[in-house]
Amino acid sequence: MTDTVISSATKEVVIGFDRPFVVVGERINPTGRKLLAAEMAAGDYSRVEADALAQVAAGAHMLDINAGVPMADEAALMTETIRRVQSLTELPLSIDSSVVEALDAGLGAYQGKALVNSVTGEEERLETVLPLVKKHGAAVVGISHDNSGISNDPDKRFAAAKKIVERAADHGIAACDVVIDPAVMPVGAVGEAGRTVLAVIRRLREELEVNTICGASNVSFGLPARTRLNAAFLSMAVGAGLTSAILNPLHEEVMETIAAAEVMMDLDRMCKRWIKRSRRAMAGVAAARQREAAVRA
Amino acid sequence: MTDTVISSATKEVVIGFDRPFVVVGERINPTGRKLLAAEMAAGDYSRVEADALAQVAAGAHMLDINAGVPMADEAALMTETIRRVQSLTELPLSIDSSVVEALDAGLGAYQGKALVNSVTGEEERLETVLPLVKKHGAAVVGISHDNSGISNDPDKRFAAAKKIVERAADHGIAACDVVIDPAVMPVGAVGEAGRTVLAVIRRLREELEVNTICGASNVSFGLPARTRLNAAFLSMAVGAGLTSAILNPLHEEVMETIAAAEVMMDLDRMCKRWIKRSRRAMAGVAAARQREAAVRA
Repeated sequence: MTDTVISSATKEVVIGFDRPFVVVGERINPTGRKLLAAEMAAGDYSRVEADALAQVAAGAHMLDINAGVPMADEAALMTETIRRVQSLTELPLSIDSSVVEALDAGLGAYQGKALVNSVTGEEERLETVLPLVKKHGAAVVGISHDNSGISNDPDKRFAAAKKIVERAADHGIAACDVVIDPAVMPVGAVGEAGRTVLAVIRRLREELEVNTICGASNVSFGLPARTRLNAAFLSMAVGAGLTSAILNPLHEEVMETIAAAEVMMDLDRMCKRWIKRSRRAMAGVAAARQREAAVRA
Repeated sequence: MTDTVISSATKEVVIGFDRPFVVVGERINPTGRKLLAAEMAAGDYSRVEADALAQVAAGAHMLDINAGVPMADEAALMTETIRRVQSLTELPLSIDSSVVEALDAGLGAYQGKALVNSVTGEEERLETVLPLVKKHGAAVVGISHDNSGISNDPDKRFAAAKKIVERAADHGIAACDVVIDPAVMPVGAVGEAGRTVLAVIRRLREELEVNTICGASNVSFGLPARTRLNAAFLSMAVGAGLTSAILNPLHEEVMETIAAAEVMMDLDRMCKRWIKRSRRAMAGVAAARQREAAVRA
């Protein structure tokens, strides 16, 4: 029973072994989104706000905030993005940056207990990020690789995760406030990437007893029909014990697969959410048919 | 490395840990199909033949044959059904009956090495079915329950499976010729059914080192949107090590999810089958668009 509590000023989300799977919306991230990056740099947050609302409507439980616009003052952008998103939604946020100043500024502006995304097992990162996490009373994502890089050996990944949890403890951060990202590699490049990550997720849960998170879409990088691949991977990962993921909640197939996976793992007691979701879907189909009939008549 | 070889007169299918997942088409089964039952009883095999061809076209690797028509001579129906299906397709068959005479007659008529579906861990079943399996040189599905019924305790299910494998050995049947069905219960009735079966599948593979099979659709019995649930379950089960399943290959979503799961588990080397499948799907979409455009013009 490991519960990681993340909160905004008014809402708490718990990542945990016997809890509903937590979906962190990944859309507010200018990496690879040129238009969004240009708008954010120019102080235009309309797309950020629309993305926030769309992800809330699609069922995200938390939102990831990345303000990594090249050549811009990331700390200032992070602060402003967090301020605006928190004025729109009460969902807790994950503060996503590799720039320590941006994390510090973001954590200072954030109302609640944030999830810092992320620290790795590299010495220099551990010693700069963990003090910040402790200072702001946040939780942190620990990516299971260290100075030797991302290994295909599940033992090495597990060892890197263990190191992060131990070092967090040295800094006064409880294990329940460390959520391990087992580092999903693309199966198109590394054939055994899927098997490796499932093995690591299982051990993280059974031996290290920590919550886990992953950026699920990386697994299908370079392959066709990525949404179906991501959905299949997420289902397997939930089956192996994964407790949260950073993903695009606008992909309905992925969200529905997660809901189905929760039914399978007894995380949707009495299948209530599944039945409700199916009723809503059927009502949607009926309404569409009625509209079509009306147009024809 | 446990390989279960099943064959027809001209084709071999191997169920194995590092092999493509084996799909056994479930459609040729009069249970719950009144029309099919009536036709078979009347000697009309047109629907059986159509179902066989449709499942072959949909990508099944084997076909399950059940001739359990109430009040009919099941042994005679089984023999005739096998004869007709084997004249239509070279896919190996699984011979599915709880009537020993039907299994014996079916095995006698079958060309190749069949998969007998099934024996349980119940004393009386073990001692009647296993000698038949040995006599005909077949392989057998062992359902992991015994005289005490289907337990929710993974240890009891594992023990029942172990008993079947050991008893098969006593009858001269190798462990690689026993494919264990961990007995999937509906999650709508038994909340932990999914977790239990995944735990059993993992142990069957890692400790007992046998191949596994399941009737996947049972897991969603009584719930809405069953195909999506079945697909999510199958993906998890492949992730846990399941090597084959009896299912309806006409459910495209299920077949595509299995293909995606194979990519994730490195069972589709270089993702060749996935890429080919995607190209075919895209070509299909393009052709449909062209037809639509032609109709409009």
